[in-house]
Amino acid sequence: MRIALGLEYCGTGFEGWQRQTHGRTLQDALEAAASQIADERVDVVCAGRTDTGVHASAQVLHFDTSARRPLSAWVRGVNAHLPDGIAVTWSREVDERFHARFSAKSRCYRYVLLNRPVRSALLNGRVGWYHAQLDVDAMAQAASLLEGVHDFSAFRASECQAHTPIRDLKVAQVRRQGEWIVFDFEANAFLHHMIRNLVGALVYVGNGKHPAEWIGDLLDLCDRRLSPPTFSPHGLYLAGVEYPDQWNLPGGGRIIAPLFLPAGL
Amino acid sequence: MRIALGLEYCGTGFEGWQRQTHGRTLQDALEAAASQIADERVDVVCAGRTDTGVHASAQVLHFDTSARRPLSAWVRGVNAHLPDGIAVTWSREVDERFHARFSAKSRCYRYVLLNRPVRSALLNGRVGWYHAQLDVDAMAQAASLLEGVHDFSAFRASECQAHTPIRDLKVAQVRRQGEWIVFDFEANAFLHHMIRNLVGALVYVGNGKHPAEWIGDLLDLCDRRLSPPTFSPHGLYLAGVEYPDQWNLPGGGRIIAPLFLPAGL
Repeated sequence: MRIALGLEYCGTGFEGWQRQTHGRTLQDALEAAASQIADERVDVVCAGRTDTGVHASAQVLHFDTSARRPLSAWVRGVNAHLPDGIAVTWSREVDERFHARFSAKSRCYRYVLLNRPVRSALLNGRVGWYHAQLDVDAMAQAASLLEGVHDFSAFRASECQAHTPIRDLKVAQVRRQGEWIVFDFEANAFLHHMIRNLVGALVYVGNGKHPAEWIGDLLDLCDRRLSPPTFSPHGLYLAGVEYPDQWNLPGGGRIIAPLFLPAGL
Repeated sequence: MRIALGLEYCGTGFEGWQRQTHGRTLQDALEAAASQIADERVDVVCAGRTDTGVHASAQVLHFDTSARRPLSAWVRGVNAHLPDGIAVTWSREVDERFHARFSAKSRCYRYVLLNRPVRSALLNGRVGWYHAQLDVDAMAQAASLLEGVHDFSAFRASECQAHTPIRDLKVAQVRRQGEWIVFDFEANAFLHHMIRNLVGALVYVGNGKHPAEWIGDLLDLCDRRLSPPTFSPHGLYLAGVEYPDQWNLPGGGRIIAPLFLPAGL
């Protein structure tokens, strides 16, 4: 039987998604908790592996098990065995042709940046920070140059193992409200560190170091060494995964979970 | 010279506000950082001492020092010596008759409660949680019975050292948006554990254990042993302090700082 789960986590305190021998990763924690409920070893596959310090409001994963449990056990039971920074948000039984990684049509990542002179104490580790005022209009204009099918070598980490640097960036948007700047990116898939590299470059436009058009030049030159440093992981969230309608997932397969709220209401 | 500071902090990882010999409190951290900048011992007085696990978006404090520093040093300099969970948000030179605690006209506390089946992993330690659906209309009706000048003995911790249990609760409001419930309380001052005890009682109205009017009965009986347990500290924030206009503080002395935001924008 194949089970799909939705997952929310705060990446702070974990060494990224992927299983390690030391056992301090999100995958290790999840597999340990799910194995307790299944009473057998569980190996999970996720939609998007996140780096150390990166969060998720809507990670999706699947695993196969011979254990027969009510669906609620895969939520409440697993949560009872997970640390505070991870929670299963939903569970579904899925067809065995569903694959959390390969069935996904696109991933949505959001970067949340606090733009004020003082860092955030309340949301430390959960948001990025830039102290000087950023020009969001210029950043939004630059972001629009990134949309479409491009060779993203300029924003690809040297350790990236993808077969090709070509990606279809369907959405690259930047918006401001008050002291907050939100970056939304949606693509079929992303290269290693691609979003943190894009955010770093957009910040160099926002602070006036470069004009918006410079982003287009960077893209054309396909040389990572010309791009600004990789931005902090703290503000980065896997915020949505889209699957074809057929898989019986929540929200018709377009799984987007909001980050934060209150204030004002 | 007397300096006033605004302070934001995440109470998780600290053992409350008040100085302790072990040094793991917010006051200890702040005094150590400010003393580094002043190059002499600094003793601070705050507007409202918070318990272990309780947060602040708008704590206010003052201290006296012979050190002459640019005002920016009391923000950026002190922040450089503070741990990630605390940040100074503003500084002002104030008249020596200003007192962070005794000059305050009122304090605003906000309780942020996530009301959904699954706990929050992203905001763990920063929000309260209740798994079953709560009736917010009944809770708001009950809260309105608390407003005004009353003897709040029913909601007072046994360790409370206040001279009188009489308080003027100017605001007691409960609102819902989606999965979030926000409680706002404003009073001249609060008793020890008063807000967490009020939230606990309002949750017992929201879950149908008692009707709204029961809150009025509890208040009248003045007996803490009849009230529900003290609610978790995780969702509680000192969110504002109000001072008379005369003190040259930000926002004309009504210092309210928002908690969280993004999502939707």
